Amino acid sequence: MITKAQVKHIRSLEDKKNRLESGEFVVEGEKMVNELIHSEFIIKEVFALDEWILRNANKLPKPIAVHVITDFELERISFLSSPNQVLAVVCLKKDKEVVDSNITLLLDSVQDPGNMGTIIRIADWFGISQLVCNGACADPYSPKVVQSSMGGIFRVNILFKNGIEFLNQHSAIPSYAASLNGTPLNEIGKIQAGIIVIGNESKGINEELLNRCTHNVTIPKLGNAESLNAAVATGIICHSLLC
Amino acid sequence: MITKAQVKHIRSLEDKKNRLESGEFVVEGEKMVNELIHSEFIIKEVFALDEWILRNANKLPKPIAVHVITDFELERISFLSSPNQVLAVVCLKKDKEVVDSNITLLLDSVQDPGNMGTIIRIADWFGISQLVCNGACADPYSPKVVQSSMGGIFRVNILFKNGIEFLNQHSAIPSYAASLNGTPLNEIGKIQAGIIVIGNESKGINEELLNRCTHNVTIPKLGNAESLNAAVATGIICHSLLC
Repeated sequence: MITKAQVKHIRSLEDKKNRLESGEFVVEGEKMVNELIHSEFIIKEVFALDEWILRNANKLPKPIAVHVITDFELERISFLSSPNQVLAVVCLKKDKEVVDSNITLLLDSVQDPGNMGTIIRIADWFGISQLVCNGACADPYSPKVVQSSMGGIFRVNILFKNGIEFLNQHSAIPSYAASLNGTPLNEIGKIQAGIIVIGNESKGINEELLNRCTHNVTIPKLGNAESLNAAVATGIICHSLLC
Repeated sequence: MITKAQVKHIRSLEDKKNRLESGEFVVEGEKMVNELIHSEFIIKEVFALDEWILRNANKLPKPIAVHVITDFELERISFLSSPNQVLAVVCLKKDKEVVDSNITLLLDSVQDPGNMGTIIRIADWFGISQLVCNGACADPYSPKVVQSSMGGIFRVNILFKNGIEFLNQHSAIPSYAASLNGTPLNEIGKIQAGIIVIGNESKGINEELLNRCTHNVTIPKLGNAESLNAAVATGIICHSLLC
């Protein structure tokens, strides 16, 4: 069973303001909640169909509030178009920097939630342990980003910080800005350490931040498109610099 | 002005069946319609706000039916969340193969419209003149795909064909299947000609098609993600093989 107040609270977690106020966010679906259980995040409570609870109750860390709900109740609280068995309310982690991160992905105002989720998934694939977001980025803990990260949100450390400030604090590490008129990516070899900087979908990287980067890299354009999608560009740059 | 029948017809073009029956699809927004005007596609009619018509009437090929509509009418026919000045009804091209295409992108059941649009945009960026889709792919002429191709739909030739049949017809050309256990992408050099094969978002490439490919390529995984987004993988493979 679920109370009206619980429904209202969960639905309110769609908004960043409410997530920050309550210190909570939502994770949904069998696969994602299974990965969540094995992560460092602290689960506050779980709302699930009885079939899910029968299969998973023994895997959950204790103590944890588990609520049996109906399909209809799940539909009321779910942010998915096809609700999937279980929804967890999870505590946001305290913002903390990974000290020994060799490769950092720094996002400057990446605003599309789909791109943000896909970029977290890319970081997870390439073993990038840290993602730095400025205040204008899509919030990584919004339901859409969490789901499209495909579990990456549990493994990639996310730090909220001004890009220039971060670069200033790590001035000994080379930084690679993705732009439209830099060195062709394939002329730069594999890197051992670095900060990869990705800009906004339409405006690119803020000029001051761009000027502060030590390298300017470009994906060669062989055809006529004006630009590439920000997540696709991130994937190409990470592969080219890290593999 | 726009009639009820015209509204009904345009809205019906959201469905593939109706697009195929009428031989028409929809292109929206200032930027996209501007690129459309410079493409080989035949425009059937244009519905636009008077401010758009004042600026663009002399650029339109003649003869063409131009209808002045209001903001409210545009909202009724638009598939965009923020309708943008103009909507064009465009004739589908006859399916025709590019004979001298060095690089072809072959999609096996890529089902997400966002991925399909982004892949067309990638093909456009890397100068890939031809995209082959099997019947299970998201239709490239759906409103969502057209818009997310960012104009690529006007420059990349799209061919609807069974993948195995296409490979059989081009058996002299090497084919590169994207899979999870092939040769690391960075061990394969730049190619001059080839067919790049991308599979379904969750199932990958159909086994028979995969076995038929001459090469099996993999994006090295350095972290923990289970997979990469299909469009991101396409971008990485195209950059690595073509640049």
